[in-house]
Amino acid sequence: MATALVTGGAGFIGANVARALLADGHRVVVLDDLSGGSPHNVPDGAVFRRGDVCDAPAVAALFAEFRFDYVFHLAAYAAEGLSHFIKRYNYTNNVIGSVTLINAAVNAGTVRCFVFTSSIAVYGSNQVPMSEDLVPAPEDPYGIAKLTVEQELRVTHEMFGLPYVIFRPHNVYGEYQNIGDRYRNVIGIFMNQALRGEPFTVFGDGEQVRAFTHIGDVAPVLARSVTNPAAYNETFNIGGDTVYSLNELARATADAMGVPLRVTHLPARNEVRQAYADHDKVRKCFGLTGETPLAEGLAAMAAWVRRHGPREPSVFDAIEVRRNLPPSWLAVLRD
Amino acid sequence: MATALVTGGAGFIGANVARALLADGHRVVVLDDLSGGSPHNVPDGAVFRRGDVCDAPAVAALFAEFRFDYVFHLAAYAAEGLSHFIKRYNYTNNVIGSVTLINAAVNAGTVRCFVFTSSIAVYGSNQVPMSEDLVPAPEDPYGIAKLTVEQELRVTHEMFGLPYVIFRPHNVYGEYQNIGDRYRNVIGIFMNQALRGEPFTVFGDGEQVRAFTHIGDVAPVLARSVTNPAAYNETFNIGGDTVYSLNELARATADAMGVPLRVTHLPARNEVRQAYADHDKVRKCFGLTGETPLAEGLAAMAAWVRRHGPREPSVFDAIEVRRNLPPSWLAVLRD
Repeated sequence: MATALVTGGAGFIGANVARALLADGHRVVVLDDLSGGSPHNVPDGAVFRRGDVCDAPAVAALFAEFRFDYVFHLAAYAAEGLSHFIKRYNYTNNVIGSVTLINAAVNAGTVRCFVFTSSIAVYGSNQVPMSEDLVPAPEDPYGIAKLTVEQELRVTHEMFGLPYVIFRPHNVYGEYQNIGDRYRNVIGIFMNQALRGEPFTVFGDGEQVRAFTHIGDVAPVLARSVTNPAAYNETFNIGGDTVYSLNELARATADAMGVPLRVTHLPARNEVRQAYADHDKVRKCFGLTGETPLAEGLAAMAAWVRRHGPREPSVFDAIEVRRNLPPSWLAVLRD
Repeated sequence: MATALVTGGAGFIGANVARALLADGHRVVVLDDLSGGSPHNVPDGAVFRRGDVCDAPAVAALFAEFRFDYVFHLAAYAAEGLSHFIKRYNYTNNVIGSVTLINAAVNAGTVRCFVFTSSIAVYGSNQVPMSEDLVPAPEDPYGIAKLTVEQELRVTHEMFGLPYVIFRPHNVYGEYQNIGDRYRNVIGIFMNQALRGEPFTVFGDGEQVRAFTHIGDVAPVLARSVTNPAAYNETFNIGGDTVYSLNELARATADAMGVPLRVTHLPARNEVRQAYADHDKVRKCFGLTGETPLAEGLAAMAAWVRRHGPREPSVFDAIEVRRNLPPSWLAVLRD
């Protein structure tokens, strides 16, 4: 029985990967600071430790205690649009936290594979469909930080021989997602608004398109990557192929939640207009076929969301730069 | 009279840029934590403040006090070979410190140009001559961190309109260089060894080549870049064209110091074998011609070094990963 560390395992993708690892027969340890996740998301059968991936002594002690075979590093603050305004927080959380884990993995000497969730944010906007052989050109601090960690894993492999697998997921939604984060996860935001009887909020005209991806098409692939040597030291896009505009998504989410469609359009913000990715590589390497249809994925998430009820949208109040902050985000800041 | 902040202004390149800025008629404020530099390097006529570029409140207060027109961000721990073993320190110092300054420059609203010294470490080893239009492929955490900050400046310009100039200097040597750092600056290391009556130490066979660059060919160009609008939002290699092997360099340095040539070869370490860069772009933009001959630059540095005497080589003892550390570096670590 192999032992896997899942950072961010009380968060959305991590909670699902932890379940997939348990289902595959692994022993699972979750490390999460609960800044975005919930202890209720940690599956029965996993060991849960509350802690910060930036806390080097605590991380080293955890590696010494459990002698991990695999590391799944999913802890991140993934608010791409907000990252311009919280650069220090972004790089501390996403880069310093990641290299703390990479150091610990190298020092431990037991880790056979380090799995990292990057993002299609590394590509930037001028390149669709996004394929893994394109030269990354990130357009926000979040995408830059993800690319930095990708490069770190490459040089760490060259210098110390630590194998890695990098996934670049996109627009993932589903059960265990935090629907109380006002800065990310449009489907969670819509569903929370539906539960609270509020109209859906859309930045701009709603004609920006995305390929939404149910977590059930992602988490098992991440979990299985450590036992797929062909995936080692490779980078994979992962996610759905079918693109929808945000207006189409709003319609489908209203249907899934059983509410009438009401949309409030906010001023457009600085975001990529079209984002869709090529998935040939991951499909071939993992033998994947098909994807969960949007209506089916939304129905599964809607059932989970209804069981858990609405959440008060959180406010990220440690904003470092207020200039050019979208007015709707500025309005909720405490002074 | 414009006011310029020079971070790392008690260090080697910063001390020289501060002098060039004073000579150009600017008011100069130096911020330096003295981790590598010396207060004796700060020129008369500059305001000196001791502090850490990662200390966000102190940095914000400094920007409020002086309302800087220009920022020259030269503070960095530039030990490329050591960076594999001090990843956390490297990214904290080089990335978190840089975004702290970038945030402060955006928030201040007074800064007209942000000058950043990157490095040819961003290129990696497979690309010579290095020219600015190549796709960067850094091979160590130091090069990755420099590339991260380059990308940050690009997206900060797009989002907030802050102009920048990026320089990628290489193998710079000269007056005010710290000759007591055992991990970087081979000419300083040789000269210190000459003063101490020790043989020169060379990693590997000494046939790796570099184009060494006297600081007098670099500092005035950096200082003038802020008043050269054609340089804004551009990236420039800067440095010498003439390449020398380390064996040739050892010979020339022994001559400059007036000592017999004695070399001890250490086991080769993981480093780029050939590094030379194309300088057409900087030459055209700044109207540069010629370069300081090596013998002349070494003579100037040797005169300065002899006046200041030998230094006890420092030990960086906050090593995070000891695995694969070069034996000569491992041997001096305190346990």
